[in-house]
Amino acid sequence: SYSTASKKCTLIPGDGIGPEISAAVQKIFTTAKVPVEWESVDVTPVKGPDGMFGIPQKAIDSMNTNKIGLKGPLMTPVGKGHRSLNLALRKQFNLYANVRPCRSLKGYKTLFDNVDIVTIRENTEGEYSGIEHDLGDGVVQSIKLITKDASTRVCEYAFKYTEEHKRKKLTVVHKANVLQKTDGLFLKCCRDVAKNFSCVTLEEEHLDTVLMPNLYGDILSDMGAGLVGGLGLTPSGNIGLNGALFESVHGTAPDIAGQDKANPTALLLSAVMMLRYMSLNDHANKIESVCFDVISEGKVLTGDLGGKSKCSEFTQAICDRLGK
Amino acid sequence: SYSTASKKCTLIPGDGIGPEISAAVQKIFTTAKVPVEWESVDVTPVKGPDGMFGIPQKAIDSMNTNKIGLKGPLMTPVGKGHRSLNLALRKQFNLYANVRPCRSLKGYKTLFDNVDIVTIRENTEGEYSGIEHDLGDGVVQSIKLITKDASTRVCEYAFKYTEEHKRKKLTVVHKANVLQKTDGLFLKCCRDVAKNFSCVTLEEEHLDTVLMPNLYGDILSDMGAGLVGGLGLTPSGNIGLNGALFESVHGTAPDIAGQDKANPTALLLSAVMMLRYMSLNDHANKIESVCFDVISEGKVLTGDLGGKSKCSEFTQAICDRLGK
Ligand SMILES: CC(C)[C@H](C(=O)O)[C@@H](O)C(=O)O
Ligand SMILES: CC(C)[C@H](C(=O)O)[C@@H](O)C(=O)O
Repeated sequence: SYSTASKKCTLIPGDGIGPEISAAVQKIFTTAKVPVEWESVDVTPVKGPDGMFGIPQKAIDSMNTNKIGLKGPLMTPVGKGHRSLNLALRKQFNLYANVRPCRSLKGYKTLFDNVDIVTIRENTEGEYSGIEHDLGDGVVQSIKLITKDASTRVCEYAFKYTEEHKRKKLTVVHKANVLQKTDGLFLKCCRDVAKNFSCVTLEEEHLDTVLMPNLYGDILSDMGAGLVGGLGLTPSGNIGLNGALFESVHGTAPDIAGQDKANPTALLLSAVMMLRYMSLNDHANKIESVCFDVISEGKVLTGDLGGKSKCSEFTQAICDRLGK
Repeated sequence: SYSTASKKCTLIPGDGIGPEISAAVQKIFTTAKVPVEWESVDVTPVKGPDGMFGIPQKAIDSMNTNKIGLKGPLMTPVGKGHRSLNLALRKQFNLYANVRPCRSLKGYKTLFDNVDIVTIRENTEGEYSGIEHDLGDGVVQSIKLITKDASTRVCEYAFKYTEEHKRKKLTVVHKANVLQKTDGLFLKCCRDVAKNFSCVTLEEEHLDTVLMPNLYGDILSDMGAGLVGGLGLTPSGNIGLNGALFESVHGTAPDIAGQDKANPTALLLSAVMMLRYMSLNDHANKIESVCFDVISEGKVLTGDLGGKSKCSEFTQAICDRLGK
């Protein structure tokens, strides 16, 4: 019953535990007979002819051709003047919306039950504009830049997402009472876009699907993840006009890297988001529910979930059940 | 055993439920024989000789003389161009540190037990600088301003606070990986100040006493309050070099104002913080523990805590027990 025409997707395995959890996802996809062909690329910055460091051309070409990618955690290069490679990728491919569903995992007990929040974060500007100045005498400034175009674009995405996922409420988080011009403009764009979506109620407070400028999204999606068991369990997608890159938000965990201890769930659920984006819903649902079942049974869990199993054992448990 | 030389404190009852909960605090203080004499002032902005609206001179004089104040919730004036009166007060009196203890209330059950976090927020600059520009064509910007002086000042306050309260860890929350200059400077000031406080461990991640720039503090203190039952229960103090203003962080609740339904706990616990600031620790401890006892017993609770009692009944229950 599954479509079999194979689609090519870019894979950025990443650093630290990245390769292990990427291998886990690949194995699970193969077992589930997902029609995805991976094109693995390295994004470690290389010195170009102009002497500047940049993302390797092969990686850029791969994403530009495939338009869909899955990414593991990346180390930020050490040393002054290096900006995060994660941000460079979002910028390079103009991935304007960052979507982070944050849902209680069936069977994995945390203090909260039935959390089901999706944060949608503007992903290109705000405090992340990269414009900073040193004014001398111990005074520095960063520019929070907000544009009507980028705000409207992410608002439209958020309303469509809310409608398509049959959610009823979209909440905008802002501080327009303090940042009257910047958050004020963002809020105005929301209210304008809202007029075209009669099925969705725009709220300016509490949480269902939550839309917000870049920096608030960073903070609140981390908080949300905290509610359901941490960044090891929550997926993320960066959506652009010309492509989308799905990633786990957690770090490279150098302390356990290479020891077959990492939990591949966040990357796997990111890959499941990717499948839905590709309209491979049957595959997405199957893999997701098997992953939840294995966690819920609690027999084969990695250390972060209180278990003693290896990454490969957890992966195998998912594959075994998929094979049935 | 209590000191009886009465000290004068400024009282800003505020709007909405402000007068009711202020009256509750006054009644409790009188019953507890706290040596505080209140000077009640109105801070509704008035037009000055230059045609500009400003805080009434009487209120400014009162704070400048007494140097200690307690404040209920204030409405933000409606209409364009009005900035928050809360912020105007922080600016007027240069209240550079905002301290928000966030502790589980004994006997009031929330999803988390034993939460005990103190957020300390730089209170004068960052995204709250008030500098914003319209660059035309749907592009606006806000300036996040960070200075070495203000950062060092609040860092020193935070380390001293941590040490004096016998806490072991101070966590700084920052995004220096993205905001390299601004958050970078804030972080550097922290690390520099840390060298003088060998009893306190500076952490750059998870939470005990938490120090951060203005905007992050706003977000995280709200989140923290959420963990222990909301803004109706958590106190706050704004500390300056020349004075301190303690306030409840919740709003004016116009929907229940004047109906004797408001919960005065947040303002009362802010007043308790004020007493500690004045070294009236015996009074502070007594009032705080009686307040916790009444909540813990669960017989006389306001609606927000799931009870049916009036503000005056809750207040009376505290006073009765104080009288014994
Ligand atoms: C690594 C960092 C630059 C990044 C961000 O701030 O967006 C991360 O925190 C995230 O949320 O993906
Ligand atoms: C009312 C508002 C301006 C204020 C702030 O942003 O600081 C409030 O949210 C607070 O936390 O005291």
